[in-house]
Amino acid sequence: MRVWLDGRLQEVETARIDPRDRGFTLGDGLFETVRIARGDPQRFDRHLARLRRGADLLGIAVPVSDAELRGAVADLCAAEGMADAVLRITLTQGPAARGLLPPPQPAPTLLLSVAPVPPPLPPAQLIVARDTRRNELSPLSRVKSLNYLDNVLARREAERRGGNEAVLLNSVGRVAETSIANLFLVRNGQLVTPPVAEGALPGVLRAAILEAQEVIEQPVEVADLLAADEIVLSNSLGLRPVVSLERLPVGDGQPGPFCAALARRLSPTAE
Amino acid sequence: MRVWLDGRLQEVETARIDPRDRGFTLGDGLFETVRIARGDPQRFDRHLARLRRGADLLGIAVPVSDAELRGAVADLCAAEGMADAVLRITLTQGPAARGLLPPPQPAPTLLLSVAPVPPPLPPAQLIVARDTRRNELSPLSRVKSLNYLDNVLARREAERRGGNEAVLLNSVGRVAETSIANLFLVRNGQLVTPPVAEGALPGVLRAAILEAQEVIEQPVEVADLLAADEIVLSNSLGLRPVVSLERLPVGDGQPGPFCAALARRLSPTAE
Repeated sequence: MRVWLDGRLQEVETARIDPRDRGFTLGDGLFETVRIARGDPQRFDRHLARLRRGADLLGIAVPVSDAELRGAVADLCAAEGMADAVLRITLTQGPAARGLLPPPQPAPTLLLSVAPVPPPLPPAQLIVARDTRRNELSPLSRVKSLNYLDNVLARREAERRGGNEAVLLNSVGRVAETSIANLFLVRNGQLVTPPVAEGALPGVLRAAILEAQEVIEQPVEVADLLAADEIVLSNSLGLRPVVSLERLPVGDGQPGPFCAALARRLSPTAE
Repeated sequence: MRVWLDGRLQEVETARIDPRDRGFTLGDGLFETVRIARGDPQRFDRHLARLRRGADLLGIAVPVSDAELRGAVADLCAAEGMADAVLRITLTQGPAARGLLPPPQPAPTLLLSVAPVPPPLPPAQLIVARDTRRNELSPLSRVKSLNYLDNVLARREAERRGGNEAVLLNSVGRVAETSIANLFLVRNGQLVTPPVAEGALPGVLRAAILEAQEVIEQPVEVADLLAADEIVLSNSLGLRPVVSLERLPVGDGQPGPFCAALARRLSPTAE
């Protein structure tokens, strides 16, 4: 399997990240997960716009144009013979000496990798993470940075407590998102989702849903989730219905009709 | 310059971190910064204990014994001809396929690197970070993880606003720490520092200070900093006096006597 790194295709088994790369030493970087369908990176403009917003925040100079990045993705997919894939773009501040300030002459690292499209995840059995909280008071909550450990801790807690996905609460105990997705609830036929200011990552599919139909963005309490007719998770790989929350059924405990209808509207990428 | 990686000394220019390493892709790892003086890693037992607590939290199996780690540090220092140095230990979950759950058969990465001891930093001119907050509600605030971006953002804000170090506030707006140090204030001859529950990293020199003399651990407001007779920063490289806060002088605007006296008590490592 090859990756695209430092401007060229390389075998992943020998591709080298410098031990001094600030992505490795400080998590000083960003990533994007993009669904590629029939050779076409889905909603790529939105992904690139978010990547560039994150790069602005972290002070990383993106070393390629959008067109060059598209070309590199096409080259990688062609080399790997993948028309349908999950692409990961990783961008970091690059190697530097010790210290928190970025180097005076940064050489950012840009890595592209592709993986086969995984089978759809089973319906979500949510737990509400107790071990950690999402920090909506940090601007990092609004970009997709490499500082992903709170999400990892929440996901591991879900596994430990018999669920398969975790709701992350923000610093005041309201719902922000889940470990790998944005969260929508359905109440009286109306879609509701927490605003970005509450700690929700500005997800690419989330934005597409907000454009495709009416959604109320407002703070969401755990009690709202318990009272919801339906809960739907979204990320760049698609939609996922929720069947339980802390072992209590959501709605009738089956994947709901709203999720299925929304998936049809957002096709072909959402499953 | 060599590093110790995957069990052996290697030239850093060719030493390779796998692009799939979770330290690089998710910040799933930890680090320690250790002062080496006359060949002796200072307070090494405390550093190793904190590293192991962090590894427990992240579910990383430390691949070496403490004795093996000491041996590797000695080998690296000898190879580099450094008796006085700053050691960095980096431990990650190692390479894995995509997804948040750790791999079933992890192969953790352990990297050691040394750098010359930097000259003492100038007295601190603090700003209070506005751009971001420290998340004391996450257990990550109590280990030294690779998710270091909030500290990086705060340090960059200090630079932008004419300071050289930043105070990080926690989610309720009280003082947690600075971007690279714990914070103590002196009030009527009494040392005060924020508790770990407020978001202070359990620093190694902080713990040594708490053992060496009476310190009141209690929540600290920005107003307390403004009223302090003296402010002192501590990290594993030593103590640092604070001369200003948001351009206002701390005490008489000169390095204070308490910092100097404490440094003498903690010698030989603290400067």
